[in-house]
Amino acid sequence: MDTYKTLREEAFEANLEIKRQNLAIYTWGNVSAFDPCSGVFAIKPSGVPYDELTPESMVLLDLDGRIVEGKLKPSSDTKTHQVLYREFSGIKGITHTHSPYAVAWAQAKKPVPVFGTTHADHGTEEIPCTEFMGPEAVKNDYELETGNLIVETFRNKGLNPAHVTMVLVAGHGPFTWGDSAARSVYHGAVLEEICKMAILTLRVDPQTKPLPEHIIKKHWERKHGPNAYYGQK
Amino acid sequence: MDTYKTLREEAFEANLEIKRQNLAIYTWGNVSAFDPCSGVFAIKPSGVPYDELTPESMVLLDLDGRIVEGKLKPSSDTKTHQVLYREFSGIKGITHTHSPYAVAWAQAKKPVPVFGTTHADHGTEEIPCTEFMGPEAVKNDYELETGNLIVETFRNKGLNPAHVTMVLVAGHGPFTWGDSAARSVYHGAVLEEICKMAILTLRVDPQTKPLPEHIIKKHWERKHGPNAYYGQK
Amino acid sequence: MDTYKTLREEAFEANLEIKRQNLAIYTWGNVSAFDPCSGVFAIKPSGVPYDELTPESMVLLDLDGRIVEGKLKPSSDTKTHQVLYREFSGIKGITHTHSPYAVAWAQAKKPVPVFGTTHADHGTEEIPCTEFMGPEAVKNDYELETGNLIVETFRNKGLNPAHVTMVLVAGHGPFTWGDSAARSVYHGAVLEEICKMAILTLRVDPQTKPLPEHIIKKHWERKHGPNAYYGQK
Amino acid sequence: MDTYKTLREEAFEANLEIKRQNLAIYTWGNVSAFDPCSGVFAIKPSGVPYDELTPESMVLLDLDGRIVEGKLKPSSDTKTHQVLYREFSGIKGITHTHSPYAVAWAQAKKPVPVFGTTHADHGTEEIPCTEFMGPEAVKNDYELETGNLIVETFRNKGLNPAHVTMVLVAGHGPFTWGDSAARSVYHGAVLEEICKMAILTLRVDPQTKPLPEHIIKKHWERKHGPNAYYGQK
Repeated sequence: MDTYKTLREEAFEANLEIKRQNLAIYTWGNVSAFDPCSGVFAIKPSGVPYDELTPESMVLLDLDGRIVEGKLKPSSDTKTHQVLYREFSGIKGITHTHSPYAVAWAQAKKPVPVFGTTHADHGTEEIPCTEFMGPEAVKNDYELETGNLIVETFRNKGLNPAHVTMVLVAGHGPFTWGDSAARSVYHGAVLEEICKMAILTLRVDPQTKPLPEHIIKKHWERKHGPNAYYGQK
Repeated sequence: MDTYKTLREEAFEANLEIKRQNLAIYTWGNVSAFDPCSGVFAIKPSGVPYDELTPESMVLLDLDGRIVEGKLKPSSDTKTHQVLYREFSGIKGITHTHSPYAVAWAQAKKPVPVFGTTHADHGTEEIPCTEFMGPEAVKNDYELETGNLIVETFRNKGLNPAHVTMVLVAGHGPFTWGDSAARSVYHGAVLEEICKMAILTLRVDPQTKPLPEHIIKKHWERKHGPNAYYGQK
Repeated sequence: MDTYKTLREEAFEANLEIKRQNLAIYTWGNVSAFDPCSGVFAIKPSGVPYDELTPESMVLLDLDGRIVEGKLKPSSDTKTHQVLYREFSGIKGITHTHSPYAVAWAQAKKPVPVFGTTHADHGTEEIPCTEFMGPEAVKNDYELETGNLIVETFRNKGLNPAHVTMVLVAGHGPFTWGDSAARSVYHGAVLEEICKMAILTLRVDPQTKPLPEHIIKKHWERKHGPNAYYGQK
Repeated sequence: MDTYKTLREEAFEANLEIKRQNLAIYTWGNVSAFDPCSGVFAIKPSGVPYDELTPESMVLLDLDGRIVEGKLKPSSDTKTHQVLYREFSGIKGITHTHSPYAVAWAQAKKPVPVFGTTHADHGTEEIPCTEFMGPEAVKNDYELETGNLIVETFRNKGLNPAHVTMVLVAGHGPFTWGDSAARSVYHGAVLEEICKMAILTLRVDPQTKPLPEHIIKKHWERKHGPNAYYGQK
C-alpha cells in the first residue's frame, strides 16, 4: 500500500514538472512512475489538465495493463509505457511530451547528431529516431506497437536503454526515461534543449560535423563513468 | 436574457484566454460566442485592451449584424464572424489572432502540411490557406468578404468545417472555431503550435514529407472517431 | 512647471514599458517625451537600470541640447532624439531599443517588406533602413549625425514621418516615434513583431512577395483613413 | 576572513543571476569571484541546483586548486577558472553557461562576426572560437587543458582579455569574464544576445558583411575609450 502511495506521489509531481519545464501545452504530455518489485506503475489519467491533477487521480496498473487502483481512465499512451517497463529493465520512470524542438526532429524523421558536450554529458550516441509504423501494426494495437517499435529500434541499432535514455518516434515525438519519474522528465527537458541547440547549430553552419569521439567519451565519463567526478557524490 | 449573460461571460473568458495563451500582443485578437437558438453572438468590443474588458463590455449582435445589446462598437472583424456562423452550421465560437507562426504561413500563402501526430490529433487535412481577396471584394465590404473568402475556400476544397476547424487568410492570419468560444481559442493555440513545429521541421529537413495516411487516420480516430478513447468520456 | 512634471512622468512610464514589452535587456533602450509648446523633452538618464528609474531621474532638455532640469547625464542617444523632434514636426515621443528581430534586419541592412496586414495596419510602406554612416560623420558628432541620417533617408525616399513611424539604422537598430511617448513604445513593439513575422515568413517561403497594394491600402485606411472604423472613436 | 565572506556572497549572487537571465537550465552554469590580493576565488559547488545555493555553500580555492574553505566539491569546471585567473591578469569574475545561441556558434565552431553596434559596444573583435582539444590533452587534465586552450587561442590571435571578454570553446560553449563576478554574468547575457542577433541576421541575409571598421571603433570608444561618455561617470 505504501508503495502505491509513493508511486502516485512521484507520478503526480513529475507530471507537474512537465508544465514547469514548458514541455507541453494543455494536456499534451504524460509521466509514469514504476516499482519493479510490485511490477506496478502509476500514470497520468487521460486528458485531465495538469492543474486539476492530484496524487489520488493517478492510475495504477500492472505490466499486463490491468488497473490495480484508480477511478479514471489512464493515459491513452499507457500501453507504450507498459512495453518499455517490460523490455527495458532497470528504468523506473517514463515521460512523453510534444515539446516542439524534439517534435521537429521526429517529424523530419532524423536522428539528432552529437554536436556538442551538452549532448555528450547525457549520452555518447545520436538520439535515435524510429521508422514509421506500418499499416498492420497501426490497425493491430497502436500504442502497444509504438512500444514495440521503440524496443525494436534499440535492438536493431544495438543501443543500451541504460545509456541512451531518449528516443524520437517518427512523425510523433519524444519518449524519455530514467531511474525515476523525475529523472525521466529531466531527460525530456534535456532532449528539448539538445534538439533546440542542434537546430540553431545547423543554422550557423548546415555542414557542422559531430563532436570528435574522444571529447564525447570524456564528457560522458566525467558524469557517468566509473571515475565520474561531477556532482557531490 | 440568461442566454445573453452566458454568451457575454463565455466571450469575456475566451478573450482573456488569448492573452494567457500568448496568441496576440495588445488588442490584436478577438473571440465571439454564439447561441444557435436565439441566433445571437457576443463579441469583443473594438480596440479595447484585454485587461479593461468586462463581461458587460461584450457586444451582442444577431446574424444580420444588428446590435442586440451593448454600448461599445463591436470588433472591426465582426462581419467575418457573422458570415462564418451563418454558413458553418454547428460552430459556437470563433477566434481571430495575429499569432506570429500562423501569420508567417498566411503571409507566405502556404497551407500547412500534416507533418505529424500533433496535427493529425486535430485534423486529417492540411490547414487551408485562402487566395488573396480581389480589389472589387476589398472595396465592397472587406470583413464580410473575408468571411465569404473562407467559406468559398472550404467549398472549393471540399472541406468540412466540423473536421477542419482552422484556416489561414492569405496575407492576414488565422481564424479558428469550435463548438464553444473556449474551444475556438484552444484551436487557435493548437494552430500556432502546429505552425511553429512545421517551420522547425522544415529547418531540420526542407524535404520533409507529410505523415503517412494510415497514421494520420489513426490519430484522428483515437480522439474523434466513433470509437474514440482519448480523455475521460 | 506642470508641463515638466507631465513630461517626466510620461517619459518615466514609457521607459518602464520597454521592459514590460521585452524590447531590451539591461539598459539597452531609451524613450523621450516632447512638448512642442515649450520645446522641451524629457529623456532617460544614461546607463541607469529601468528598476532604478523615477520620474525625478528623467532629464529635461531643449532642442539645442541644453539641460533645462535634472541632475543626471541624459541618454547617450539624446542628440538623435533632438534632431528628430526638430525635423519631424508633430511627433511627441521617440523610442530606441536593441530588440533582436529589428536589430537583425538593421544588421542585414535590409528594409522590411509589407508581407501582411499586421504591417499594413501600421503603415503602407516597407520599414526603411538607412545606409551606413560615413567616417567623417562618425568623427564629427555621431549621435547628431544619426539623427541627420534618419532625416535624410526619409527625404530621399519621400517618406512622411506621420505615416511611417519606424526606421532601422543600418548596423545598429530601430528608432520609432508617435504622437506620445507611450505611442512610440507601442510602435517599437509593433516593429519587433513585424520583423519577427517577416523572418518567419521568409523561412516558410524565401520567395514571398509583398501583400497586394489594394489590401495594404484597405488595412491602413480602416485604422487611419478619413473613414477609419477601428477602435471606439 | 572578511574577504572570503565577500567573495562567497559575490559568487552566490552572481550564480543566481544565471537563472534570472535565463542562461542555463538545471545546474548547467557556474560563476566564480576572485580576489587578486589573497589569490583566492569562490565558486559554485558541483551539481547543486541554484535554488539550493547559499553563500556558505560556495567553495573557496587558491590558484593551485587547493580548497581553502568549504565542505562541498567545487564545480567540475574549477580548473578552467583557475587557469584563466592565473593567465588573464585583472579579471575578477568568470562565468560558464550552456546558453543555447552561444552553444550553437560553439558547436558550429565559428567565431561570431561583428555584425552591429550591440556587439561593438562590448568589443571590437569577433568573438573567438577555440579549436577542438586533441586526444592527449583530453586524457591529461581536461578542465585545466580547457583553460590552456582558451589562453592559447587568445595568444595565437593576439587578443587582449581586457578587451575581448568572451570566448567560445569549440563543441562546448561560452566562457565570459570581467572585473567582477556580476560583470562576468553580464557578459554571458550580452554574448547570448549577440549570438541570437547574429543568427537572425544570417536568416535575413546569409551574405551579411561585418559592420564598417569606423563604426565599430566609435561604439567601443563611446563606452570604453579614454573619452567614454556612456553612463553616469
